[in-house]
Amino acid sequence: MELLKQRILKDGVLKEGNILKVDSFLNHQVDVELLNEIGKEFERRFRGEKIDKILTVETSGIAIAVIAAQYFNVPVVFARKTDSKTMDEDVYESTVYSYTKNKSYTIRVAKRFLKEGENILLIDDFLARGKAMEGLIDILEQSGCNLVGIGVVIEKGFQEGGKNLRERGIRLESLAIIDKSKDGEIKFI
Amino acid sequence: MELLKQRILKDGVLKEGNILKVDSFLNHQVDVELLNEIGKEFERRFRGEKIDKILTVETSGIAIAVIAAQYFNVPVVFARKTDSKTMDEDVYESTVYSYTKNKSYTIRVAKRFLKEGENILLIDDFLARGKAMEGLIDILEQSGCNLVGIGVVIEKGFQEGGKNLRERGIRLESLAIIDKSKDGEIKFI
Repeated sequence: MELLKQRILKDGVLKEGNILKVDSFLNHQVDVELLNEIGKEFERRFRGEKIDKILTVETSGIAIAVIAAQYFNVPVVFARKTDSKTMDEDVYESTVYSYTKNKSYTIRVAKRFLKEGENILLIDDFLARGKAMEGLIDILEQSGCNLVGIGVVIEKGFQEGGKNLRERGIRLESLAIIDKSKDGEIKFI
Repeated sequence: MELLKQRILKDGVLKEGNILKVDSFLNHQVDVELLNEIGKEFERRFRGEKIDKILTVETSGIAIAVIAAQYFNVPVVFARKTDSKTMDEDVYESTVYSYTKNKSYTIRVAKRFLKEGENILLIDDFLARGKAMEGLIDILEQSGCNLVGIGVVIEKGFQEGGKNLRERGIRLESLAIIDKSKDGEIKFI
């Protein structure tokens, strides 16, 4: 997606360890106009597929998922990382290992929001090693929902998450795939 | 806001301790159509005010803030609760006490996203004792931004948050204000 790539080149910052900082438009400050273009692009790519619901995971996936959902006319469910007093006891849960935080956390979705046979699109901001995405897929498998596909805004093409998902035959649409940088410049695949 | 009140009566669940569960449409599963009506209503109420940016706090405020921002044509910033590798070191921060979790946490906003003199609208899903809101106001005061007002979806009218903010002369627009329940029925003020 050209508009997104241009924005990443303009405002993205590459930090040590190939960490891409896009907090000025995607995951701290949010450019809602750009998000709308991202939402339209997801809809264009998945047009013709039957989608009943979008599933994402807190925190950074939420803004992208709800804006995109407007173009699919479906509700959004976001998996919770934090335990809440108002959370159902009857939940699907999965354990996700975070490489950035070097620890595991649990994601949970109330069972009543994922009904057997529903067609689900997964959306998230980043795909790197793909652990959060695997957790969401695990929850979908427990629920008996159908995984239609995955839409991510930025895939780190030099990490194994995307490769693993594609090898499993899952349809993955990444709007920008970045390559490993050798000279501090952001490169796309 | 009548549509919202009807939805709370239809799908909200009152739990012990006057905890209102609205996770089927607001903060776990999200009804994006309803959120659009909420966004329009915030815009209607704050029409005529100069607003440069909407500030909220993760997690549940994000969906509401980004949908609402479409009607204000402004970016959203969400204060982070979790420390992130990609977070700036130069941040405004404030400590927020959570009664539901019985502990304090820190919220942070990168300084470059709140510039002195900017006009800020605060948005969140719930207002009860108002501690998160006070944390956001503290951050705005540190930054030298102007607080235009606060929009919350559901105010717990029987807790002191709303009263305290109004006594400080802050413009607070709550789309539904619920009363303390004596009989397990949801009542509005």
